[in-house]
Amino acid sequence: MDDSRVATVPLVDEANVTGKVADIFADIKRTKQIDFVPRFWRVLATNPAQLEMVWTSLKRLMHPEAVGAESLLDPQTREIIAIAVSATNGCNYCINSHTTAAMKMGLTREALGEVLAIAGLFNMTNALADGYQIEPDVRPPLE
Amino acid sequence: MDDSRVATVPLVDEANVTGKVADIFADIKRTKQIDFVPRFWRVLATNPAQLEMVWTSLKRLMHPEAVGAESLLDPQTREIIAIAVSATNGCNYCINSHTTAAMKMGLTREALGEVLAIAGLFNMTNALADGYQIEPDVRPPLE
Amino acid sequence: MDDSRVATVPLVDEANVTGKVADIFADIKRTKQIDFVPRFWRVLATNPAQLEMVWTSLKRLMHPEAVGAESLLDPQTREIIAIAVSATNGCNYCINSHTTAAMKMGLTREALGEVLAIAGLFNMTNALADGYQIEPDVRPPLE
Amino acid sequence: MDDSRVATVPLVDEANVTGKVADIFADIKRTKQIDFVPRFWRVLATNPAQLEMVWTSLKRLMHPEAVGAESLLDPQTREIIAIAVSATNGCNYCINSHTTAAMKMGLTREALGEVLAIAGLFNMTNALADGYQIEPDVRPPLE
Amino acid sequence: MDDSRVATVPLVDEANVTGKVADIFADIKRTKQIDFVPRFWRVLATNPAQLEMVWTSLKRLMHPEAVGAESLLDPQTREIIAIAVSATNGCNYCINSHTTAAMKMGLTREALGEVLAIAGLFNMTNALADGYQIEPDVRPPLE
Amino acid sequence: MDDSRVATVPLVDEANVTGKVADIFADIKRTKQIDFVPRFWRVLATNPAQLEMVWTSLKRLMHPEAVGAESLLDPQTREIIAIAVSATNGCNYCINSHTTAAMKMGLTREALGEVLAIAGLFNMTNALADGYQIEPDVRPPLE
Repeated sequence: MDDSRVATVPLVDEANVTGKVADIFADIKRTKQIDFVPRFWRVLATNPAQLEMVWTSLKRLMHPEAVGAESLLDPQTREIIAIAVSATNGCNYCINSHTTAAMKMGLTREALGEVLAIAGLFNMTNALADGYQIEPDVRPPLE
Repeated sequence: MDDSRVATVPLVDEANVTGKVADIFADIKRTKQIDFVPRFWRVLATNPAQLEMVWTSLKRLMHPEAVGAESLLDPQTREIIAIAVSATNGCNYCINSHTTAAMKMGLTREALGEVLAIAGLFNMTNALADGYQIEPDVRPPLE
Repeated sequence: MDDSRVATVPLVDEANVTGKVADIFADIKRTKQIDFVPRFWRVLATNPAQLEMVWTSLKRLMHPEAVGAESLLDPQTREIIAIAVSATNGCNYCINSHTTAAMKMGLTREALGEVLAIAGLFNMTNALADGYQIEPDVRPPLE
Repeated sequence: MDDSRVATVPLVDEANVTGKVADIFADIKRTKQIDFVPRFWRVLATNPAQLEMVWTSLKRLMHPEAVGAESLLDPQTREIIAIAVSATNGCNYCINSHTTAAMKMGLTREALGEVLAIAGLFNMTNALADGYQIEPDVRPPLE
Repeated sequence: MDDSRVATVPLVDEANVTGKVADIFADIKRTKQIDFVPRFWRVLATNPAQLEMVWTSLKRLMHPEAVGAESLLDPQTREIIAIAVSATNGCNYCINSHTTAAMKMGLTREALGEVLAIAGLFNMTNALADGYQIEPDVRPPLE
Repeated sequence: MDDSRVATVPLVDEANVTGKVADIFADIKRTKQIDFVPRFWRVLATNPAQLEMVWTSLKRLMHPEAVGAESLLDPQTREIIAIAVSATNGCNYCINSHTTAAMKMGLTREALGEVLAIAGLFNMTNALADGYQIEPDVRPPLE
């Protein structure tokens, strides 16, 4: 299959990159400990400035240790947020990618099922709360 | 309160309209059997061509009898679809407006609760089906 | 095709189930009058507690007669809500499944077209009402 | 303020309930360790069957210990999923409610900021992956 | 492949249409300067009234010059709005179709990347603003 | 009104900031040519790293000239994308903020109406294309 035709915007081939894009591709593989560059990054690479911006943000938030930062959440929880958002939006690529990542980190099928059950539950209650036009409960001051 | 300041785009005041906009405002009140022009139409009236386009489509689909057309769905079912879509999107104005319209047509609070319960349920199953990346069941030909 | 590989979470094979899952699978086929277990339920079956919870809710709301309850909406209207929600969310599996179910109940292509036209219309008006920041019309007390 | 007028569907007053609804209201306060019944449940109480169904599912998933079940996720992670879903859907009531719940469990403002940053990030990448029409990376068998 | 089986609702074959549908099909090809009728219109053609309604609205807004109207936006900007909406909703057919149309009008891959980057950015900030429950900044009167 | 109580997460007061946050606040006012710091940034400032990340991305994409970069889209088109995304998501704060910004750049009410009409139209066609399960038209290679 001609891989470069899968998306309307062609995928950048890892073998053909140099300079900043090559550095980011290498950083993605090293940081994520994978041996290929996922299609998401290969498409973004058609716009190197965008590739850098998205990778910088994602690296900072999802791999903080790689930039000497700290996270108050553990890595699996961070992937769980990604799964919950992606299931809510119905983004097929993203669900596939984050499910794979979370399972690689040790999230079991049973736990994944629980994540999706909870995400599903709150998609239900969100529609109910909006549909019934419910105003927030009175809030006490936070301090 | 200065009513014309409620939205960033000011509401067109019913008392000040003439020509096509006045005709459509009158048609909205007559067709919907209400004695005021809802804010939605008063905002659209800032763009008369858009007002006409949206009203023509909505009148054809929601009040087909007014244009000599027929519907295969009854009026309450059509409002129920509006409620289900608006609860799913979380559109506050729309939920308020369609709930009011449906209740005026005789939808009871119990039935409204059932509509929202079902809309909520399928927002849940949608997230589950997407989250689990489930492909459609094999489809037999329709004929 | 290796059916169990279609989703990241494998489908539970109907032939291999026992106990509670087998009972629910049988109940799904009997209640829905179908001769196979849809993939949605075969995926949920990887988490039996979740399978039971979702099936109990869906059976209660979509097949109330099967649990001795009553609905204020007719069965076709309930499927129409499912279609409207699923089209709004763009859930491919769900649209496919509920379209099939509604047509089996007698919803014609013409009526399906009308359901989708109305769902489409209100996705448009939802974006307009939100985009114009329109506040709800004054509400009279309901009683 | 006349509290029963806040939503189109009136809120059920805690002081006036008996039977099943009173039992569920008491269970909600006991299980969630709060001294009032949130509006969400007071609206659902207009449909006791729906109140029971939603509470049963939510109690099972969010308070499993109360029904003798176990969760593979800790309580704070479960609330984090609720926040991520609600921020993605833009459900104001739900965001307010789950933020409050998570903070009560010890989620700091800094950690909440991180949850929202990650939820925001993946709303961005979801739109990018969909917008670029990217197909999932090749999946190795899971076993 | 049996083209008429691709969607649950069969595609209307261009060779078999007469009357109003044939006229609209011809108008679509002429107005859009394409030599085939896209599947979207071939499905809508199963409901000729709906086909006419959607085409009339789309022609008026996206091809105003064809009906003697004027637009305050240039054609490429109008397609860019279509792409931004479709990427936000994750509508695969629509993204594919509007990306193709915009590129045909001269939108380069680099510019498409910028459109998607900006659409992605605001999907992120939308989730942040909703997630943090931020109220609008004080609005000065518009005049 | 006690401004710091509007959101659950308190707004950072411009008068009390120093260091990096003060620098970013000044940069926001200078780059956007406004004389106050919008609430969005004042909430993000509770997490300085997140404030910096979001501002860096937004500044690069929406104010490229301020970082010596170039855009292939004009500033008004970039705000139009923001409006289209925000109307689709129904994010009230964002719609308010981007409508104000676009009008300040010269977008007239008539043009804003056209932006929203087109955004509305494609929210409708997105639901139709998804609801009818339409597969993309055959794509010719792009080169």
